[in-house]
Amino acid sequence: MSITQSLASSISISSSSSAFFVPTSFVPRFQNVQFPAKSIGVCKCVATPQEQETVFKTKVSRNANIGKLQAGYLFPEIARRRNAHLLKYPDAKVISLGIGDTTEPIPEVITSAMSARSHALSTREGYSGYGAEQGEKPLRTAIASTFYREFGIEDDDIFVSDGAKCDISRLQVVFGSDVTMAVQDPSYPAYVDSSVIMGQTGQFQKDVEKYANIEYMRCTPENGFFPDLSSISRTDIIFFCSPNNPTGSAATREQLTQLVKFAKDNGSIIVYDTAYALYMSEDNPRTIFEIPGAKEVAIETSSFSKYAGFTGVRLGWTVVPKQLLFSDGSPVAKDFNRIVSTCFNGASNIAQAGALACLSPEGLKAMHEVIGFYKENTEIIVETFNSLGFKVYGGKNAPYVWVHFPGRSSWDVFSEILEKTHVVTTPGSGFGPGGEGFIRVSAFGHRENVLEACRRFKQLYQ
Amino acid sequence: MSITQSLASSISISSSSSAFFVPTSFVPRFQNVQFPAKSIGVCKCVATPQEQETVFKTKVSRNANIGKLQAGYLFPEIARRRNAHLLKYPDAKVISLGIGDTTEPIPEVITSAMSARSHALSTREGYSGYGAEQGEKPLRTAIASTFYREFGIEDDDIFVSDGAKCDISRLQVVFGSDVTMAVQDPSYPAYVDSSVIMGQTGQFQKDVEKYANIEYMRCTPENGFFPDLSSISRTDIIFFCSPNNPTGSAATREQLTQLVKFAKDNGSIIVYDTAYALYMSEDNPRTIFEIPGAKEVAIETSSFSKYAGFTGVRLGWTVVPKQLLFSDGSPVAKDFNRIVSTCFNGASNIAQAGALACLSPEGLKAMHEVIGFYKENTEIIVETFNSLGFKVYGGKNAPYVWVHFPGRSSWDVFSEILEKTHVVTTPGSGFGPGGEGFIRVSAFGHRENVLEACRRFKQLYQ
Repeated sequence: MSITQSLASSISISSSSSAFFVPTSFVPRFQNVQFPAKSIGVCKCVATPQEQETVFKTKVSRNANIGKLQAGYLFPEIARRRNAHLLKYPDAKVISLGIGDTTEPIPEVITSAMSARSHALSTREGYSGYGAEQGEKPLRTAIASTFYREFGIEDDDIFVSDGAKCDISRLQVVFGSDVTMAVQDPSYPAYVDSSVIMGQTGQFQKDVEKYANIEYMRCTPENGFFPDLSSISRTDIIFFCSPNNPTGSAATREQLTQLVKFAKDNGSIIVYDTAYALYMSEDNPRTIFEIPGAKEVAIETSSFSKYAGFTGVRLGWTVVPKQLLFSDGSPVAKDFNRIVSTCFNGASNIAQAGALACLSPEGLKAMHEVIGFYKENTEIIVETFNSLGFKVYGGKNAPYVWVHFPGRSSWDVFSEILEKTHVVTTPGSGFGPGGEGFIRVSAFGHRENVLEACRRFKQLYQ
Repeated sequence: MSITQSLASSISISSSSSAFFVPTSFVPRFQNVQFPAKSIGVCKCVATPQEQETVFKTKVSRNANIGKLQAGYLFPEIARRRNAHLLKYPDAKVISLGIGDTTEPIPEVITSAMSARSHALSTREGYSGYGAEQGEKPLRTAIASTFYREFGIEDDDIFVSDGAKCDISRLQVVFGSDVTMAVQDPSYPAYVDSSVIMGQTGQFQKDVEKYANIEYMRCTPENGFFPDLSSISRTDIIFFCSPNNPTGSAATREQLTQLVKFAKDNGSIIVYDTAYALYMSEDNPRTIFEIPGAKEVAIETSSFSKYAGFTGVRLGWTVVPKQLLFSDGSPVAKDFNRIVSTCFNGASNIAQAGALACLSPEGLKAMHEVIGFYKENTEIIVETFNSLGFKVYGGKNAPYVWVHFPGRSSWDVFSEILEKTHVVTTPGSGFGPGGEGFIRVSAFGHRENVLEACRRFKQLYQ
């Protein structure tokens, strides 16, 4: 295959909307595996002794924590249902407002920098091998000065990474299995799943749809999607996402001040996910470090994914202030640095060049234009559901619209919408039991698709 | 800062040889932190009550497993000593044959593909967001057909990643804390360190320089750097690197057949690291899957880092055959897929485009030329130490030369070489107690630097 061919094939595949949905194509592979549970159990009568013998099993026990996880990770499950729908309706024009994947081209000022960096790697002067695991110095500096200049966060508090999701898992590795954690309910599922994987939780309790030993902080329209902290038990770690995925709500300065005080009173560490901060319209804090004292109790993670369309390029960062200390007085940043050095080798140098371009004046302007485009999408979706008489939350400070279907199962609503409009959304209960009765509609999409989806919503619910 | 400026600064920083050594610049940050152990303990008498009160500590306990780790990760420690040396001899022309970082430009056929992919991300047709966590289909196919065509490994057994080191940690997360492990001694330190972090080991035992509960498989000149398996206890996991880093030796077909049989008899899982396979001159297996039955007991991890100079671009892969089962009969690949989906979001799409180009006919040819260049370096180093009367191992099948200094401390030899020749090497004991008395000399370097280093070695040891 020539370079041109191989490049073309790679582009055509990955730009198709089905590229994300490979987890589904992963599922059938195990159909060819002879599962002992079947061959020895139920199907015993039909399996010959020879067939049973062909299955070699190691003596390594499966990690019991992974066994606790329920079904697949949310988004691959949605992909599976979407693909099943496509099999049923092969001619349907399916529109995805589900996963929250960016769709608009990356501004040229940013891709030009990545292209130039790629070419430079073919020159002796421009070649670079292993970079610092913590990120290239100019990028750490640019992140600190762009987002944290006034809040006392310094270059060396910034750890550049291949994305917030990856850093959440690395943070969990730092914390280990002996910590307790709290999450907003509903919340982005990676917090809970990574906690389960690390062994911080008990089993999943089907009756309440919660894992034992996790503190679920209920966020509802009634409490303005900010938990009632007086009813929350102390935990070591508090995951908090604002602007929130999926509810789209952003905490106010007063609420965050409460949260920091709560963490300080309890000696807890907040892991603050602010991947959507630049989507805020209202004057809420863009970073937890706007709150005095936050540096002693908080870590912040963020990403270029939703700002610059870097979901595939992969570039994020995590702030671990040097003031944040474990109970023995040792800096959390020191252990995070050890994990980053041992379990990671830094983000791709080309992606880092792109991120640096994002933070140039032209890059920032271009990034805000992309964000503005998605915010217009959000308004269209909000207006549509408002006009249909639904209670709609979010949308103002985040690219997610949180639509209430009181008393209904959110998977049922998800299925109804998919079946009748060929639009993929995300069922609220996928984000925790507190999401039941809601669906999340993502504003990431080409304009004509968002408009078409909204036309179909109107047909269905008018 | 303009794009041109920001790009230029990023390139100039990262292409300097000091870019890797940022871990060192990280160390001093904690000098500004008031360590409670000091202020409350030893320095109690001089600290005023106010000062004590300024240090806020959370009530979160430090992860005891991370506390078990000895000092820093090996390579940052070497960086620290290198930088201390530069402070002492600011005018010295320091040459690094230590870390094993690639130095030669990436062939243009590969960077052109990455550049084109970058530009394509600015077009609506060429844009791609989240890719499959497991990697883009064309790349998985190309890896399977290039490296494993004859050995029954299929596209969906391939998991594309941001590098072998990262995948080793993800594999450890899959295995969890309840497994036992064996490593070659000496070996690449990430295996042991990631095992310690996951809680698979006991404390470090200073007298033997080993962690409790790890089986160290001694590899010496006497056993041809292949462990005496009859003296090895059963473990769940066996990390095995061939061609080996640091000894440079490659296991023969007969030895690997023994290893697979050993794993099968014990029901163990081999994690086979073959990141240097293309450096082999002798006719040893390039992959563990050349050995019949290996698919039922082995995982293989590899990388483009040392083949195409991708140490900074970040692209590797791991093969988890669907035939590999836990004791309960569930496929290991299913759990690895869950971890990859939950804790990772796929390698950068631009890096994947580069990897695909590596596997085109032109890319393969160019990659082999780069490898050939480093192999010539290796020969120069081997000849130098041979001519000086040292016993030299490795070099034939790997870009590492393993030089014996019988009876001497390898950190002493490291210091002697650095002090007298300004050449950075790696002390063998950094790879485990079995590396004591050796130093590893890396063949990654510009030709004139390798020649100059060898001239200095001759001056020192003639």
